[in-house]
Amino acid sequence: MTKLPTEPAENLAALIRCPSVTPDDAGALGTLERMIAPLGFVSERPVFAEEGTADIENLYSRRRGDGPHLMFAGHTDVVPPGDVSGWSHDPFSAAIADGAMFGRGAVDMKGGIACFVAALARLVERGEAPAGAVSLLITGDEEGPAINGTAKLLRWAAERGEAWDACLLGEPTNPDAMGDMIKIGRRGSLTGTITVSGTQGHVAYPHRADNPLRGALALGAALVAPPLDDGSAEFQPSNLEITTIDTGNRATNVIPATATLTFNIRFNDRWTEQTLKSEIEGRLARAAEDSALRPGKAGPVQFRLDWMAPVSPVFLTRNAALTEALAQSVTAVTGRTPALSTSGGTSDARYIKDYCPVVEFGLVGRTMHMIDEHVALDDLETLTAIYADFITRWFAGQGAE
Amino acid sequence: MTKLPTEPAENLAALIRCPSVTPDDAGALGTLERMIAPLGFVSERPVFAEEGTADIENLYSRRRGDGPHLMFAGHTDVVPPGDVSGWSHDPFSAAIADGAMFGRGAVDMKGGIACFVAALARLVERGEAPAGAVSLLITGDEEGPAINGTAKLLRWAAERGEAWDACLLGEPTNPDAMGDMIKIGRRGSLTGTITVSGTQGHVAYPHRADNPLRGALALGAALVAPPLDDGSAEFQPSNLEITTIDTGNRATNVIPATATLTFNIRFNDRWTEQTLKSEIEGRLARAAEDSALRPGKAGPVQFRLDWMAPVSPVFLTRNAALTEALAQSVTAVTGRTPALSTSGGTSDARYIKDYCPVVEFGLVGRTMHMIDEHVALDDLETLTAIYADFITRWFAGQGAE
Repeated sequence: MTKLPTEPAENLAALIRCPSVTPDDAGALGTLERMIAPLGFVSERPVFAEEGTADIENLYSRRRGDGPHLMFAGHTDVVPPGDVSGWSHDPFSAAIADGAMFGRGAVDMKGGIACFVAALARLVERGEAPAGAVSLLITGDEEGPAINGTAKLLRWAAERGEAWDACLLGEPTNPDAMGDMIKIGRRGSLTGTITVSGTQGHVAYPHRADNPLRGALALGAALVAPPLDDGSAEFQPSNLEITTIDTGNRATNVIPATATLTFNIRFNDRWTEQTLKSEIEGRLARAAEDSALRPGKAGPVQFRLDWMAPVSPVFLTRNAALTEALAQSVTAVTGRTPALSTSGGTSDARYIKDYCPVVEFGLVGRTMHMIDEHVALDDLETLTAIYADFITRWFAGQGAE
Repeated sequence: MTKLPTEPAENLAALIRCPSVTPDDAGALGTLERMIAPLGFVSERPVFAEEGTADIENLYSRRRGDGPHLMFAGHTDVVPPGDVSGWSHDPFSAAIADGAMFGRGAVDMKGGIACFVAALARLVERGEAPAGAVSLLITGDEEGPAINGTAKLLRWAAERGEAWDACLLGEPTNPDAMGDMIKIGRRGSLTGTITVSGTQGHVAYPHRADNPLRGALALGAALVAPPLDDGSAEFQPSNLEITTIDTGNRATNVIPATATLTFNIRFNDRWTEQTLKSEIEGRLARAAEDSALRPGKAGPVQFRLDWMAPVSPVFLTRNAALTEALAQSVTAVTGRTPALSTSGGTSDARYIKDYCPVVEFGLVGRTMHMIDEHVALDDLETLTAIYADFITRWFAGQGAE
């Protein structure tokens, strides 16, 4: 009999040893496909391409069953290891030391995939596999541009008749310890670029020029103050950060012709995309009229505002059966009550929510994207137990045995 | 008998035809050396070099005489022509059309040199050459870094025993018409760069980061407002312009770690370098404490201020004999009373002032550095007449005949 992939650490080691830095797959998805085949999964491996982006490998695997359909989503691509000489162990060797496994992707999020596979394998081994369908939707483009990843993979599968009742996304959600936090929604994300147009000239003749950086200071201050709001019942305050201001003028005796400023807003459910854009446009229009930083200049600051696509909308998963099943599984295994959070950055849940309710739970994220990313072996066992409990609990709640 | 260089248009055409875009000499100084040799000038051609800069040709020529010593200073290098297809005539052909000569350097400032040579040639031809000494101090590095130019040429000549009683710098000083303006001083110039240090982070977790651009907005606003002063008896208001703000962050979901801001101040005689630096440092220190744009951040904005060398000091030529002789010559030829101005950008007068009193007067600057730079042939005649009158008048005022 084929050995089933019941050990999360073994599963994870096999995945870490594929150096799948976006956009390279480096064998990661093939490793996963072979790992889950003994569990009855049938896999497809669509490659998505788009001009100006790298071709990306993806995996959609389904274990057939009658009844409800649970999707587990995630990604095998990882961020670059950074300065390899700074690592205590080779970032792609899956070295074990001090009760932890080291490697890029250990927690973000090859570890989550390894645990879900192990959880299902244990259920199968015990004869407790769910009667319903389970699918894995795994991309190689989450850490990169995310153009040839989850969004296309969902559409591709849906066009082939796939439909899901719920999704568990295995991103690391716990700030400090297993059981801290489930994520049930995210703030929206909106990015804009402002190009301020002035009149180039010599610094000795400022009356003949119009310095766009004076305008940029006024517009930038209006963006960041006052704060957009003080939060809502289920979300953190909305927040705007200017991510870059650039001019590129190396001549210290020249007033530049243009300056650009880019900002990103993480917004909560007190805003829609439209009301937020209106607020920002209003602030900028009023600031452009303020002459305090531009004494003697006629007319408002000349600028163009470009909103960047796509906008990530704010969302909240209100599916109690899904959220409560996951929270109960966390409590059953860890003895802790997880926070139901909407904090933090976006994830591929922003795409999945258009197809089915989605919740996120995974490992402890503290070392993600850092030198010496690692996961405690105990945490792998804990997450595997939580996932197994959740699979059983969720299918039971759907009336499937 | 050798023909003397009495015609300014001919002199100018010969110089324009040498495409002496900094740092190339392209034969310009050799042309000038041959042009003035019949007037009794003995020339030396020191080449100055410095690591990291282009070697630059220079010319120092002296016509011996007993008595006072008048220096004429200038440069034969020119700025690039820009888009040559935009010119009505080849920028190095010295084409004549509509009563004007076209070419790069026509007014800035091969024209000034051409007129001074013609003025002296006419005096020599008429037997009215001054009894004192006249020297030409001409560099090929005024439009470029100005490292291997006038500053070194002055030191080189002074070390060989040269001393001057006055200098006429032939830069274009008239905004609109001949006789508008003599320049008798310049504001100082001070440049600084601010590096604001924050804490890099994800835009979704602003409480874990410290956005240096929030600090940069606060510091930048404090630099430009309120104005430094409202001018002095002999100078325009001091003025500060931010010339560039740069971040170079292309990731719209990342709060950057640092941002830089460079500014330049043109300052008048209400400031010294030290009082001005203190004012700026005080403004920045106070703005760094302001938390309006950085709510929730502990401590002041972290930044470093670097002053760039060299600082150009403010100066004013208080030599009445020199200033009045030039103004009287302008009035005698044009019938107009020139403004005695300290406006505008720096010139090599900032170096010359350490050796002797210096005034500036030349052509109409309107087309300098532009496509289709050109000079009216009438203006060449007018400037030649003014220079000839000034030479005679200044030497007479010194008691030399």
